[in-house]
Amino acid sequence: MSAKDVMTVFSPATVANVGCGFDILGFAVEQPGDEITVSLTNRKDVRILSIAGDDGKLPLDPSKNSAGVSVIALLQKLKVSQGVDITIVKKMPLGSGLGSSAAGAAGSVFALNKLLGEPFTTQELVPFAMEGERVCSGTAHADNVAPALMGGFVTVRSYDPPDFISIPTKIPLFCLLVKPHTEILTKNARKILQDNVPLKKLVCQTGNLAGLIIGLIREDISLIGRSLVDVIIEPQRAPLIPGYESIRNTAYDSGAIACSISGSGPSIFSLYSDNRKMEIAAEKIKEVCSREHISIDCFLTKINYSGIQIYE
Amino acid sequence: MSAKDVMTVFSPATVANVGCGFDILGFAVEQPGDEITVSLTNRKDVRILSIAGDDGKLPLDPSKNSAGVSVIALLQKLKVSQGVDITIVKKMPLGSGLGSSAAGAAGSVFALNKLLGEPFTTQELVPFAMEGERVCSGTAHADNVAPALMGGFVTVRSYDPPDFISIPTKIPLFCLLVKPHTEILTKNARKILQDNVPLKKLVCQTGNLAGLIIGLIREDISLIGRSLVDVIIEPQRAPLIPGYESIRNTAYDSGAIACSISGSGPSIFSLYSDNRKMEIAAEKIKEVCSREHISIDCFLTKINYSGIQIYE
Repeated sequence: MSAKDVMTVFSPATVANVGCGFDILGFAVEQPGDEITVSLTNRKDVRILSIAGDDGKLPLDPSKNSAGVSVIALLQKLKVSQGVDITIVKKMPLGSGLGSSAAGAAGSVFALNKLLGEPFTTQELVPFAMEGERVCSGTAHADNVAPALMGGFVTVRSYDPPDFISIPTKIPLFCLLVKPHTEILTKNARKILQDNVPLKKLVCQTGNLAGLIIGLIREDISLIGRSLVDVIIEPQRAPLIPGYESIRNTAYDSGAIACSISGSGPSIFSLYSDNRKMEIAAEKIKEVCSREHISIDCFLTKINYSGIQIYE
Repeated sequence: MSAKDVMTVFSPATVANVGCGFDILGFAVEQPGDEITVSLTNRKDVRILSIAGDDGKLPLDPSKNSAGVSVIALLQKLKVSQGVDITIVKKMPLGSGLGSSAAGAAGSVFALNKLLGEPFTTQELVPFAMEGERVCSGTAHADNVAPALMGGFVTVRSYDPPDFISIPTKIPLFCLLVKPHTEILTKNARKILQDNVPLKKLVCQTGNLAGLIIGLIREDISLIGRSLVDVIIEPQRAPLIPGYESIRNTAYDSGAIACSISGSGPSIFSLYSDNRKMEIAAEKIKEVCSREHISIDCFLTKINYSGIQIYE
């Protein structure tokens, strides 16, 4: 096996359902993320050799693992029976609304595509990684895998045809991720949502979404803050998350630009214009949660505009 | 009366409810529009001296006319009892979904504000003009008056507090306005709308809205075309407009980037990247409508990025 047959990448955590962008807006962060090694082999099959950091929870069977399924989908599209070995070192929590399954899927297809001489553009890889999401959560959503692959803020305009649009911004925002020690299954978080939305709330939500996108592009912190408000999904899901109100209020009191649920929870993201404010918010949130006996982990990070990184 | 006490302005027609931007997105066009003359007088009251071009349909009573009400609202805010005379030459059809009442309201407060030494910014004038809309249509909506005043594409992010955001674009699009000879009352067009929207359609609509805003800012014609699609309002209102399907199909067949209902109809707007395509579309639409015995007027124009213009 030559050096060109092996690649290790860092695949980032991602925040989907960004406030008023339910199901259509996600962003990547610099940390946490998974380390994924993909090797071409002389065999004909796809194998997951090992997974570390998952407490044995993730399946090694490639047909049940987001990384395996995505790689198989890519190979099927190319109609080649290339052998592929995958090794995963998970460095982020599972089932937490931080795009863990997406990181595995995105990282694996990204590395494989590079090893095969880039038959696909990065954007063209999104549908393969979506197949990995389908096996994990039941729906082939793209709002985690697209930002993991493409970096930054990405809009899922349409699935049919696939249309994933990078928001043209590089605004340097700091992002605090708070993960309560509770698990919420995506399908349960989806089940509680009302099937219908009042037209008045649609108008409010779309006004905010327009403001958020303009704010990101203009790098207008105040406009982002005024606009990153979710009047439809957050009120329905917040009661599932222990301490949500306290954490959210503490983030805003500490200078957060915005705060909402990451993915379908239980993680909570908040955005800051400077590092110091984020550090203070993290300390205060830890204090509040300790007082209220809510067990949490915190990740202090930034928006990631590079997407997946290759380890040299 | 000195020269500084009189001002004549051109106040443009506007397209509201731009596709997926129901109630939150509008744009101004270069033609048609109204000519409005505002004079300061030594009296204490606001008068509408005359209205031409309205077939006698609009009220001269300032408390019932959008221009009069808007001017009164501005003067009340300033707590001055300045006499104001208004003359209106309407050069656009009434009740057609082209923002006729907004043009009167926006033009009048714009001119008065200039004559008074600009106590307000242009954006701050929007709430006064909204009062004019309230007297005409029953709701103080801003998606016509804001683009009339500010020019270009404007998002109504919020009414409380008022937050009107210019979309940072100068994309030079041509705009064909087709006005069937049918009247649709805004309140009737609103009454037929379902109070609730399926969550799935919300996701589709917000994906398109995000794409539209990014497309406008990036000046990406293809993205604008893919995104300017309304899956919620247009299907409900289209049946109110005679010949809508034929006109829409003909516009797209002639190279339109996008086509949808202007305001609450019956006018229909379509956008083009060049003048020639717009001219061809107009000719073909006239042919089709003639064949189907649908009586229409056409306005061939462009997006107006200047807002209201002062006649020197």
